[in-house]
Amino acid sequence: MECLVEHGWSGTTTTVVAARAGVSRGAQLHHYPTKAALVTAAVTHLTERRAVELRTEAAALPAGPRRLDGVVDLLAAAFTGPLFVAALELWVAARTDAELRDALVPLEARVGREMHRLTVELLGVDERRPGVREAVQATLDLLRGLGVANLLSDDSTRRTALLHTWKRQLAALLTPDAGPPTPGSARPH
Amino acid sequence: MECLVEHGWSGTTTTVVAARAGVSRGAQLHHYPTKAALVTAAVTHLTERRAVELRTEAAALPAGPRRLDGVVDLLAAAFTGPLFVAALELWVAARTDAELRDALVPLEARVGREMHRLTVELLGVDERRPGVREAVQATLDLLRGLGVANLLSDDSTRRTALLHTWKRQLAALLTPDAGPPTPGSARPH
Repeated sequence: MECLVEHGWSGTTTTVVAARAGVSRGAQLHHYPTKAALVTAAVTHLTERRAVELRTEAAALPAGPRRLDGVVDLLAAAFTGPLFVAALELWVAARTDAELRDALVPLEARVGREMHRLTVELLGVDERRPGVREAVQATLDLLRGLGVANLLSDDSTRRTALLHTWKRQLAALLTPDAGPPTPGSARPH
Repeated sequence: MECLVEHGWSGTTTTVVAARAGVSRGAQLHHYPTKAALVTAAVTHLTERRAVELRTEAAALPAGPRRLDGVVDLLAAAFTGPLFVAALELWVAARTDAELRDALVPLEARVGREMHRLTVELLGVDERRPGVREAVQATLDLLRGLGVANLLSDDSTRRTALLHTWKRQLAALLTPDAGPPTPGSARPH
């Protein structure tokens, strides 16, 4: 993943990775016969580790209404960190690399589902309530967009201001009977 | 741009582009001395053309409250189309290519500003009103995130459902005195 962040997909050769990891080419090829297998295993491993870290960091957040702000900040950090950058290198490379694409498509679906489930858990919300699922999805898609906007230049000032507003909006969407009006649907209250 | 979409950044050589464009290498190098100059000019040209097309398509939308839905759909199509894919190839490649990065950073800022201005114009909203600027920004960042989610697999079903909800939310945010509650700020009404 460090190689992907520093050199990009095309600069990440298995030889460079083996040298950096301090393992022989033989050992590397034994465990990961292809570059696609190697990077897919790395994304899987680091995504799982990141999920554990996010749970630990979220557990340290104070309870109360400001907890949501802290969770959004943790997620925003994940979407602007090195793992996101490395994953984006792979996602873009996979468009034009059939072997990588075949390995990544099922992984993308799984990571997407787990990220969604983790966000629901960290926010402590009930997804069966109308609107909650969509609000969580929009938050993650928004954060992915903000991650891309941060690729070439430091977008943190704009991002902080935008997320400040989004947190209030998300809080309203997640609070029962406090969401925005839904034209065309009858509201019980 | 077609080369970028089909072959990615590393597969897009100036030789391949010259052959496809039907121009001599001499003529190409005369106008675009480097690959970075060539692709930057292409992004600039196509972004301007896309803005003209978006204005034309938006002008054909019916007036009334459903106009916002049509504008969001037009923008979503732009963020999942070939120009977005080509731009993303460049943005990611520029992370690890200093020459491309130097060329793209000012372009990214300009395209970002123009996309924002165009969205304000197409939605017919007044950006001096509180919350409007942030709502437009969030819409564009959300659409960028949805564009990335569509890279490797067709995400249109999920995107359509998510945007259905987002359109209602955006309409509420853009309608005076109908936005979500803003804790901690005094409201005049």
